[in-house]
Amino acid sequence: MEQLISYQALLSFTKNIFEKIGCNENDAATAAVALLSADLRGIDSHGVARLSGYVRLWEAKRVNATPAIKIIHETPSTAVVDGDSGLGLVVAPYAMQVAIDKAKQVGTGWVSVSHSNHFGIAGHHAMMALRHDMIGIAMTNASALVAPTFSIERMLGTNPICVAIPAGNEPAFVADLATTTAANGKLEILQRKNLHAPPGWIQDKDGNSSTNPHELKGGGALLPLGGDREHGSHKGYALGAVVDIFSAVLSGANYGPWVPPFPAYVPMPENMPGKGIGHFLGAMRIDAFRSAAEFKLHMDQWIQRFRSAKTIKDQPRVLIPGDPERAAEAERMQHGIPLLNAVIQDLNDLGEKFNTPFIVH
Amino acid sequence: MEQLISYQALLSFTKNIFEKIGCNENDAATAAVALLSADLRGIDSHGVARLSGYVRLWEAKRVNATPAIKIIHETPSTAVVDGDSGLGLVVAPYAMQVAIDKAKQVGTGWVSVSHSNHFGIAGHHAMMALRHDMIGIAMTNASALVAPTFSIERMLGTNPICVAIPAGNEPAFVADLATTTAANGKLEILQRKNLHAPPGWIQDKDGNSSTNPHELKGGGALLPLGGDREHGSHKGYALGAVVDIFSAVLSGANYGPWVPPFPAYVPMPENMPGKGIGHFLGAMRIDAFRSAAEFKLHMDQWIQRFRSAKTIKDQPRVLIPGDPERAAEAERMQHGIPLLNAVIQDLNDLGEKFNTPFIVH
Repeated sequence: MEQLISYQALLSFTKNIFEKIGCNENDAATAAVALLSADLRGIDSHGVARLSGYVRLWEAKRVNATPAIKIIHETPSTAVVDGDSGLGLVVAPYAMQVAIDKAKQVGTGWVSVSHSNHFGIAGHHAMMALRHDMIGIAMTNASALVAPTFSIERMLGTNPICVAIPAGNEPAFVADLATTTAANGKLEILQRKNLHAPPGWIQDKDGNSSTNPHELKGGGALLPLGGDREHGSHKGYALGAVVDIFSAVLSGANYGPWVPPFPAYVPMPENMPGKGIGHFLGAMRIDAFRSAAEFKLHMDQWIQRFRSAKTIKDQPRVLIPGDPERAAEAERMQHGIPLLNAVIQDLNDLGEKFNTPFIVH
Repeated sequence: MEQLISYQALLSFTKNIFEKIGCNENDAATAAVALLSADLRGIDSHGVARLSGYVRLWEAKRVNATPAIKIIHETPSTAVVDGDSGLGLVVAPYAMQVAIDKAKQVGTGWVSVSHSNHFGIAGHHAMMALRHDMIGIAMTNASALVAPTFSIERMLGTNPICVAIPAGNEPAFVADLATTTAANGKLEILQRKNLHAPPGWIQDKDGNSSTNPHELKGGGALLPLGGDREHGSHKGYALGAVVDIFSAVLSGANYGPWVPPFPAYVPMPENMPGKGIGHFLGAMRIDAFRSAAEFKLHMDQWIQRFRSAKTIKDQPRVLIPGDPERAAEAERMQHGIPLLNAVIQDLNDLGEKFNTPFIVH
């Protein structure tokens, strides 16, 4: 059901496809690297499996392959970027670079982005800050799949937050999390395998707890981190709301139930209050607070202390945020990325359509 | 079991006590307002019930009533503040003002604080930004009560995050949340009432799920938001870790299991890597992104749309973060703050000790 495909082969194919829809070479490379960072890090739902989805958005004229991305408002530590309907995979790295440049000047940089599209995984963009000895922050809103506490309406996306923090000898701390109990990608895995979801992930159209991973098709919803009121779902809802407001109300993008859907066949919401989807990117220079060397010594101590915490019997060691994704990246960079046959078929079809053969048959 | 005490009477008494331990009049007023903001907003665990706890920290020479709070490092958008062992109730407002002043200059301000003590509720400090048409952010670490996913050791505090966002005609959006399933204050309520906790809040000393609210005394732990791995506890753990790192590793305060405990009788951890406890405060000027008037129109629309989301049958309306606390504040400002007799007794004892009679007998 799966085959291993080398990262380089996938990267070259993906870049070709982005060039075929009209991206210039630089943008195509930026987008391909961003998209495949999901496959490398084991977030299969957000990687190359979505390539044909991005192409369909371009076919529907919802993605502009040659955007004039620009800063439309700024101060020394902030900017608003208009993505001109470009791929989020290109717009977000542009905006993150603006944040990094501002941090170089005044200590921190914060960029809210409107008029963009889905940007892949938040982690990729946040981690751009690491090589500059900066903390990177990335978040994005997304089309509404999540019901706030007490609601049966889907009002928020899975709205992820990533915070990437450099360390010294230890690898970086990278927390990258959807503000829901489970990301939509985990639901898709259960759907494919015909398995039930644990209670607390989903509710049905009337707001009853459900374990049916197909519930969203019938009007159900994902639940905010916490699951229900008693377990703090109002906190997950509040965090998802903050992501929505920072990404879209600050920038002039669409928010809440008005965020454009990823599948090109789903009609756009009515009376949209803004432009495209929104992101929020931040960079904080470590030495704007204390010497980077000193900080890294303490981050190493932090990481070592947490990693050596006593574990529950028969449980694996205590993990540091980013550990599982880094392990996946090392494994997959060396041995290849496992793709489902359905995904490979999809890539073959795409290759045929654009006369750019995919390497696996 | 409870009596209603007027806010003004409590404020005047609390200010007196802070003056009696040596705070100057300004600091005493700042601290009293900050402490009582918890009682007003219905967070009874963090308010005047802790006044005698703060006094005991002063008696144990862990709180300095006349601190020389100062900026020890800064850039145009950042600062590190050394609280000189002052009350967090005084140090945090100072640091938040630094953040606000920097935001006025360069769009945003970010202040990490070391050498401080407990600061009451995060919401009070974050909300200082609202009157300047800024978004306010406040977080703090705290002594370790929380076990990361897979751990039986308590490694993190309940590490709250508050984000306060101004609106136009609607009241502000104020999300103020512990990064645990339930805050410790909720556990204290169950302890007093001899009730069980829902599964997912606590584990026992071996890491088994427990419903005993006294479990922490036997070596148990609070659980990160999410409760268990299947429900995303690694996300709550990651969020609590980010709060810890921003508050303490950036500033040079103590982190993880080394954060000083609130009860003065609990011995200090060994080999502490920093000074006191840490906070992180931020302010972002709205018009550093877009016109404040335009932003507020959209915030009003955001709030109205979420408030009118269809609800689950028999459920109250969908709430906006900050609604319950604002309702409590209106009610309590008018009718008084309900205090348990045990708390009143505690305040009477304090009044006697300092020759500042509390008004209720």
